[in-house]
Amino acid sequence: MNIILNPNKHQINMMYAQWKVNRHNDIQVFDAYIRKSQYHNSYAVFAGLERIINYIHSLRFSQEDIEYLKRQPEEYDCAFLEVLKKWKFTGTISAVPEGTIVFPNEPIIRLEAKAFEAQLIKTALLNFINYETFVTTKASRIKLVSPEDYFLDFGTSSRAQEVQTAIWGARSTYIAGFDGTCNLEAGKQFHIPTIGTHTHSWIMGFDTEIEAFRTFAEAYKNQTILLVDTYNTLKSGVPNAIKIAKELEEKGHKLKGIRLDGGDIVYLSKVARKMLNEAGLNYVSIMASNLDENDIFNLKAEGAKIDVWCIGNQLLTTEDKLPSAVFELVARKIDTMYDPVIRISDDPENITTPGLKKVYRIVGEHSNKAEGDYIVFEEEDVQNLKEIKMFNPIHTYIRKLVKEFFALELLTPIFLNGKQVYELPTLKQIREYHIEQINLFWEEYLRKMNPAIYPVDLSPTVWNTKMKLINLRKYKS
Amino acid sequence: MNIILNPNKHQINMMYAQWKVNRHNDIQVFDAYIRKSQYHNSYAVFAGLERIINYIHSLRFSQEDIEYLKRQPEEYDCAFLEVLKKWKFTGTISAVPEGTIVFPNEPIIRLEAKAFEAQLIKTALLNFINYETFVTTKASRIKLVSPEDYFLDFGTSSRAQEVQTAIWGARSTYIAGFDGTCNLEAGKQFHIPTIGTHTHSWIMGFDTEIEAFRTFAEAYKNQTILLVDTYNTLKSGVPNAIKIAKELEEKGHKLKGIRLDGGDIVYLSKVARKMLNEAGLNYVSIMASNLDENDIFNLKAEGAKIDVWCIGNQLLTTEDKLPSAVFELVARKIDTMYDPVIRISDDPENITTPGLKKVYRIVGEHSNKAEGDYIVFEEEDVQNLKEIKMFNPIHTYIRKLVKEFFALELLTPIFLNGKQVYELPTLKQIREYHIEQINLFWEEYLRKMNPAIYPVDLSPTVWNTKMKLINLRKYKS
Repeated sequence: MNIILNPNKHQINMMYAQWKVNRHNDIQVFDAYIRKSQYHNSYAVFAGLERIINYIHSLRFSQEDIEYLKRQPEEYDCAFLEVLKKWKFTGTISAVPEGTIVFPNEPIIRLEAKAFEAQLIKTALLNFINYETFVTTKASRIKLVSPEDYFLDFGTSSRAQEVQTAIWGARSTYIAGFDGTCNLEAGKQFHIPTIGTHTHSWIMGFDTEIEAFRTFAEAYKNQTILLVDTYNTLKSGVPNAIKIAKELEEKGHKLKGIRLDGGDIVYLSKVARKMLNEAGLNYVSIMASNLDENDIFNLKAEGAKIDVWCIGNQLLTTEDKLPSAVFELVARKIDTMYDPVIRISDDPENITTPGLKKVYRIVGEHSNKAEGDYIVFEEEDVQNLKEIKMFNPIHTYIRKLVKEFFALELLTPIFLNGKQVYELPTLKQIREYHIEQINLFWEEYLRKMNPAIYPVDLSPTVWNTKMKLINLRKYKS
Repeated sequence: MNIILNPNKHQINMMYAQWKVNRHNDIQVFDAYIRKSQYHNSYAVFAGLERIINYIHSLRFSQEDIEYLKRQPEEYDCAFLEVLKKWKFTGTISAVPEGTIVFPNEPIIRLEAKAFEAQLIKTALLNFINYETFVTTKASRIKLVSPEDYFLDFGTSSRAQEVQTAIWGARSTYIAGFDGTCNLEAGKQFHIPTIGTHTHSWIMGFDTEIEAFRTFAEAYKNQTILLVDTYNTLKSGVPNAIKIAKELEEKGHKLKGIRLDGGDIVYLSKVARKMLNEAGLNYVSIMASNLDENDIFNLKAEGAKIDVWCIGNQLLTTEDKLPSAVFELVARKIDTMYDPVIRISDDPENITTPGLKKVYRIVGEHSNKAEGDYIVFEEEDVQNLKEIKMFNPIHTYIRKLVKEFFALELLTPIFLNGKQVYELPTLKQIREYHIEQINLFWEEYLRKMNPAIYPVDLSPTVWNTKMKLINLRKYKS
């Protein structure tokens, strides 16, 4: 499917106006970053890069696109449409690798390109990273509630989700540490382990629950998972599952699990565990579906006996406010210099941080834990600093001195003048990298409720430039 | 892109188990319906049918899919995979037309098919209708706040949205009565009017705001819309826009509008309107972006002077709970008879309504307004009834007698034994039909806050069958 026309008409219109005054080859720099710490200051997990790379390689205006643009009331000049027709991406992109833990107000993608093409691709880039970062973050938080448990993505039938998004959503949950998915296409494309059980309608398709269970078990043997709450969990579902487990044992097989989809999970799982154990079926797992991290946190505290958590709707139709990124212009290249620019707003959250910047994660040499992220201009040297005086860019009295550290650069080159210079890691590598990222942080920064605020600070040079431009713009324009 | 493997592995696994016992050709009937009145009893607007039709026509298992399934731990039988390879849809589908106002607990799609294929397509069908119904419903509610105003879909950059979904989302807003979209691909595919302005970064790409405005206006003339809040709305943005409007007038053009993207919209729009009018620019529209129906409702009550509302993120990343549908098995065909089946649950919301059913919208002959929806078995005759005793299926003391009515059947045949029998209306027809639907209801049923509860009732025969099956299952299984 052709998606080059997915950008807003805003973008095409700005491209055209730039072209009209021959400013379309101006080089501009945009930062993508998560604007608001609206999700209680907690962390986000970056994802979406693989699709961005695929997208950029695929971008071309078709003859059909050009014909459509010709019919618009804006009356685009034919020479402009010729330029579109020949266009392919020539810009430079850096991004943090997928699976990286990120925080609000730090660049996660830096795009340096002709004004023209930057306009064109921005929207799609945001779409990709926002959706995948959203799901990966949510899944990572769910996994963090109980890292030793087994988690499955049941998100395919999520209710406000698109067919195609489910596939990339499954990949996102795998990055975040989930163990498998029920989505077969995701399994096929990304080599994620897949698992399937049955639904209530399976049971209802037979005259009795035991007949439905038996038929399913005959097909699946060791892979059998039985949903026990269609009629009555403890009086019918679990006793019938135990019968089937015994029948499987006689044939040399083992029932894999039973699944609870609702009701009083704490009570039902405790009693079901007891019933299974008394029948000598300690090996049968109990799975629960239809829950999010708050549910799981509480259910575990209350002693629920669940081995496997199946997470569906909760990955998207959540009431949490989850991270969402914006792209803002931060510099214009004039000859060989980068001229920092700023956007002012009455809402302090919307004021941008100007300049061509890079981001370091400052890690304590002895603790091996992240002390904070440090945003500097491209030309600043952080590696050779003996110490860093970090300070909060809003509440500047919050400060700390960091010594004996190493500085990890977060933004990695992806495209250089239109050419891909980044080799995509495998999904397994991304997943392992995410675990390393989790381990890099004190748990106080990652916990769900009232996490400590992780420092994302500006170097004095960046901070001073921002203040100077605020003062300048306040009395100019 | 191939999406046949998008269904959960649950589906493939159930298909396989059915095939193993030669039950895969059993005919089953599933109803899709919105389960919960979680969105405060308000209405939903059905959409998603066009994609369902496209999807069903495209469904085939590729050789690659079959190879992937061969490698699964379930060890599917080769003969089963051969059946998959040759499969195409042979079932029967009815659905309410797109743009129909629907309520919880009434069938919006009825699927009658081999157990086998019903399993396969259910998930994708839900994905399509849930997403599109979600956006259409939200957009319809937004439009209903102020039907005389102009509404634009700026949803393309919505933050948790996928690239591809934006296109269908734009179509959904158009069904709901929006007047245009900024999404060009949606414009191209569906002939929806498109509109584009510029972003803050456009302004920041120039030395001064006036230079940025002038460059844009030179390209767009009568189509020019200027975003006035990059630096200071009333001291810089609006005065500069007025200068540009005057320059355009000298060349025989008219500035189309100015846009406010945030801040105190009531105050800013009032003062901007006054400044524009005093400059003789009464014809220049004021547009506001970044708002939802609650904002608009309040802003209008407080006297904001906005002519055009641009709705973006609010279409998806909403805190409302919006409608979401489920598919449940309601009947099995045994020879030529439909045997009703039920799912019982401790949660009364999850108990299904059994049987092969149809839905009538009962409309008063004199008022021409909907009195309630009435669910009956396929063989029941409603058209020739003199009166209907409607009663609430939960709180049965809530009842009313309806006389002098006509009964509109909501479920329309879409596929008959695998063959499409429905001619898709044009998007314009769907949009007009939605307005008719809105007019069919007393506004008390549609209002956002505490709407009156619209009756969705069962015929005595359906109700009695449901009660009988509940009693039967409670002591059986």
